Amino acid sequence: MFLKSALLGVIVSLVGETAAQAPDPTSSYYRPGIPTDTPVPGNYTDYLRPRVHFSPPRYFMNDPNGMHRDPSGLYHMYYQYNPLTPVAGNQHWGHATSRDLYTWENQKIAVWPPNNYTYVFSGSCVIDSENTSGFFPDQDNGVVAIYTLAEYPNNVQGVQYQAIAYSRDGGYTFAAYENNPVLNINSTQFRDPYVIWYEPTSKWVMVLAYAAEFVIGIYSSPDLKEWTHESNFTKQGYLGVQYECPNLLQMPMRGQEDPVWFLQISINPGSPKGGSISEYFVGDFNGTHFVPYDDATRFTDFSKDNYAGQFFHGIPANEPQIALGWGSNWQYTQIVPTGLIEHGQFRSAMSVPRTNIIANVSARGYDLLSAVYSVESVFDSELTYNSSVGNSTILTYFGDVPSGAIYFEANITGLVASTLRGTANFTLSSSMSGEYIQGGINAGGSPSIWINRGNIRGFDNPYFTDKFSEEGTFGPSNNGTWGMSMVYDNSILEFFLNGAQAGATVTFFPERPLDTLSVSIDGIAANASSSVAVWGLKDTWADQADGNGTVRGNVTQSSGSMGSYQLF
Amino acid sequence: MFLKSALLGVIVSLVGETAAQAPDPTSSYYRPGIPTDTPVPGNYTDYLRPRVHFSPPRYFMNDPNGMHRDPSGLYHMYYQYNPLTPVAGNQHWGHATSRDLYTWENQKIAVWPPNNYTYVFSGSCVIDSENTSGFFPDQDNGVVAIYTLAEYPNNVQGVQYQAIAYSRDGGYTFAAYENNPVLNINSTQFRDPYVIWYEPTSKWVMVLAYAAEFVIGIYSSPDLKEWTHESNFTKQGYLGVQYECPNLLQMPMRGQEDPVWFLQISINPGSPKGGSISEYFVGDFNGTHFVPYDDATRFTDFSKDNYAGQFFHGIPANEPQIALGWGSNWQYTQIVPTGLIEHGQFRSAMSVPRTNIIANVSARGYDLLSAVYSVESVFDSELTYNSSVGNSTILTYFGDVPSGAIYFEANITGLVASTLRGTANFTLSSSMSGEYIQGGINAGGSPSIWINRGNIRGFDNPYFTDKFSEEGTFGPSNNGTWGMSMVYDNSILEFFLNGAQAGATVTFFPERPLDTLSVSIDGIAANASSSVAVWGLKDTWADQADGNGTVRGNVTQSSGSMGSYQLF
Repeated sequence: MFLKSALLGVIVSLVGETAAQAPDPTSSYYRPGIPTDTPVPGNYTDYLRPRVHFSPPRYFMNDPNGMHRDPSGLYHMYYQYNPLTPVAGNQHWGHATSRDLYTWENQKIAVWPPNNYTYVFSGSCVIDSENTSGFFPDQDNGVVAIYTLAEYPNNVQGVQYQAIAYSRDGGYTFAAYENNPVLNINSTQFRDPYVIWYEPTSKWVMVLAYAAEFVIGIYSSPDLKEWTHESNFTKQGYLGVQYECPNLLQMPMRGQEDPVWFLQISINPGSPKGGSISEYFVGDFNGTHFVPYDDATRFTDFSKDNYAGQFFHGIPANEPQIALGWGSNWQYTQIVPTGLIEHGQFRSAMSVPRTNIIANVSARGYDLLSAVYSVESVFDSELTYNSSVGNSTILTYFGDVPSGAIYFEANITGLVASTLRGTANFTLSSSMSGEYIQGGINAGGSPSIWINRGNIRGFDNPYFTDKFSEEGTFGPSNNGTWGMSMVYDNSILEFFLNGAQAGATVTFFPERPLDTLSVSIDGIAANASSSVAVWGLKDTWADQADGNGTVRGNVTQSSGSMGSYQLF
Repeated sequence: MFLKSALLGVIVSLVGETAAQAPDPTSSYYRPGIPTDTPVPGNYTDYLRPRVHFSPPRYFMNDPNGMHRDPSGLYHMYYQYNPLTPVAGNQHWGHATSRDLYTWENQKIAVWPPNNYTYVFSGSCVIDSENTSGFFPDQDNGVVAIYTLAEYPNNVQGVQYQAIAYSRDGGYTFAAYENNPVLNINSTQFRDPYVIWYEPTSKWVMVLAYAAEFVIGIYSSPDLKEWTHESNFTKQGYLGVQYECPNLLQMPMRGQEDPVWFLQISINPGSPKGGSISEYFVGDFNGTHFVPYDDATRFTDFSKDNYAGQFFHGIPANEPQIALGWGSNWQYTQIVPTGLIEHGQFRSAMSVPRTNIIANVSARGYDLLSAVYSVESVFDSELTYNSSVGNSTILTYFGDVPSGAIYFEANITGLVASTLRGTANFTLSSSMSGEYIQGGINAGGSPSIWINRGNIRGFDNPYFTDKFSEEGTFGPSNNGTWGMSMVYDNSILEFFLNGAQAGATVTFFPERPLDTLSVSIDGIAANASSSVAVWGLKDTWADQADGNGTVRGNVTQSSGSMGSYQLF
């Protein structure tokens, strides 16, 4: 969660703010104009609206929060939300649920601020199945949200402290803990708690950012209420201007039985590419201290539109870990055209869900392999399939796909390391405006992946970098394939080398819809083959819309019986 | 030095190469067509030619090598040089000398390969004033070059080992040591030695790259001939795809008497911005081990055209250390238009000389302050000076400046931290073609500097990124000034925030010369002032050119008496 006081100039003014009013942490303040018992409605029909990436019904969204898979298998995503205007401010926790991580149902706002001069910043949720907190005497599916409250008395950035709230209805409605805050060091830069259960010590562990000091603090607690400082992880990796939104979790590592520990830190501002970026460390964690295996800096994405990612709780440690990031960048997120009335006044989308493991695929080692999660579940129509492309070009018109969204792959197959050569390039263009995005993969020299959004004309800005690339010692996959793949979704895309070896979430804002895909394969070895496949993707919001295209969401009152599912 | 075997496709074929020929390390191989006793001539009059940045007379240049200030105060710069074609290959050490670091005199090629299948890669020079090597029985100004020889038998990348050569004429002519190599571990990725004298142990210390393993090896020697492995600095910072060109030296740190130790590593390919980049570490060195003060990753520049920088030997440790970098990026250096016949067939320029110290100006700490070295020495004409700009725009036409090069500053003055606000932006444009470069500094929110070369039309490429920015907790300078400054030089520029707090070398290739500068100041506090000053810069090559504009350089036979100058 990033809200510099400097941004307040563009934030809607706080209503009736006063520093003199004594805070009551158990109360909820309902700012006038925000629906309390029903989701915010939204129209998802504009040509810039993503259809398989989550975007808020209206107004401004940033970090994913409280991500967890509940005992019924339902995924809960909360998110930093200003339900009043399409710029940052008035932060609440919005809420959406999904069974497939692509088709989302909007829920009512889940976490409210305690008063009119405090914002609810980022945090996480845990399921307290053992009732360590005492909030859940009669159930094993109680949800506790742990989050930052950030005070802005008289619109000036004040203290940031950690609070908790509990939900007895499966994560739809939260009540603030009466003795909040649970962790307060009187700092104005202390936020974004991410909490896990650490089984060996039977304690909760929190990581959070002392943002301006480049410190990730590690705390422990038996009950989510009393927190003990255990250690600091200080000035490691790339620093930027602030550390934010840490994640600490176990993740599988290819080729070994035991998972490794994974610490992700988001940085904003100050990315080497400008603005927002995320980095990660792989190492050991003993319940109190995290020690990385080496002192190398590794970024999660090769572009600049994937920030503040959060990993879902509820995925066993020996399975690929699922994460979603905020698909934007603070350098320009508050001025992109989707916030205009004609585009439905929404700003930002989440990345697609990605599954993640660690592997040694490049000489760097401890590479994060981040792949698209089960995108087949939103395939709608096969547009192109050609398994004997050779060295040629395949054109696909997708202007008839109702969602405007496609998935495509281009693969060179039948390879061994010594026959790896050639390029696969794509152009996504608009037959109406001539705008285009280009990119590709290059197997020669230093294997690389690149993308250029600079020929899209609906938005520009001094910080809206056009070109991104990554180079690495990436060879063909184990099955002898070298390929590129993409989820293309109207104003946001994910682009991958070999499915996961390098990847990026990229936003773009065309004046007219893109509708034509050209894929060219060139220079492959004589004994290699190549293939191109393109699918149209579902419009996941269409079934929820009324006759005017408005999605009103759902008011889920209870998630019902949760059975005996154990989160850890 | 970066020469992937993949690049060999565009390199001129080695002549008569054979792996069967027994190497004679003491011989010199003179490839046909390369002048041996006279500098390569060049024409420096094209509108893309830098006039205050060094560029080679013709053909291809990359890393600076062997940089030192000799006992007479003359600066020697050697450089990776292909004297036959405007792409990488046929590597020799070119040579140029200067008294002001802007006005360079081309010298004859200084270091030649031993045979026709070996290249001379990067390295450094030391002055062996105590004759530790035994090469200099009668003088205290002997120069020893320590460099990598890279074999390419049958055009395939072979072994890389370290060799030395000695010069008894002040660095103009070198003879190879008869017992070369001095360090050979039979690796194909082992290069770029940088050697210093470490006084406490009275030994030479070498740092060099085990490139593909992300290791900087540290060796010591009493005589530059016998080298002992002391330690490895492994997998620290950003890794990219290869480590190259380390520098290890002492550097002043603001606010303390003792200098700190500074380790710089260049990375190519694999920069987060794509291609080539340099990072640095600040810490302690005891003659055998370098230990950084923290595990943070810090880059030297915020753009992507400053690589393989080398620090001059001969500058006392308590003075700002002077460095030059290669002003390009391997992603596109071999295809930029300056290599065409109509532009004089030169490729690449060095950065301007920069003076460097360490200071804690941002919250990150250990910030490298890298400022332009004494640019006043090449001021030619004052074009604009206005010390009461306020919030307005100042236009300067510089199409009449013979060099085409300018220096400008725009400063907001009379500030304290609480009055720091406002922006200063520039546009450099061509009145002939309409092309332009824009950039600026922004004091609000997160202070930042940005530049956009995307509206220059003479060159584009998927990796030629348009926009760069850096954000930091940069306040006004101690004298209450917040400003931007630039050395603009036809196809290369340096752009700075507050003179040194953030900086970048940026290349650009316009279709027609840029000739108009617009500087706009906006939003400054009521009690602040602002100023804009613009100077035309000298054409440093003009005095050396004949009637046709050809510069033939100088054949310096001896640097004469060197007195008793001690390098360390």
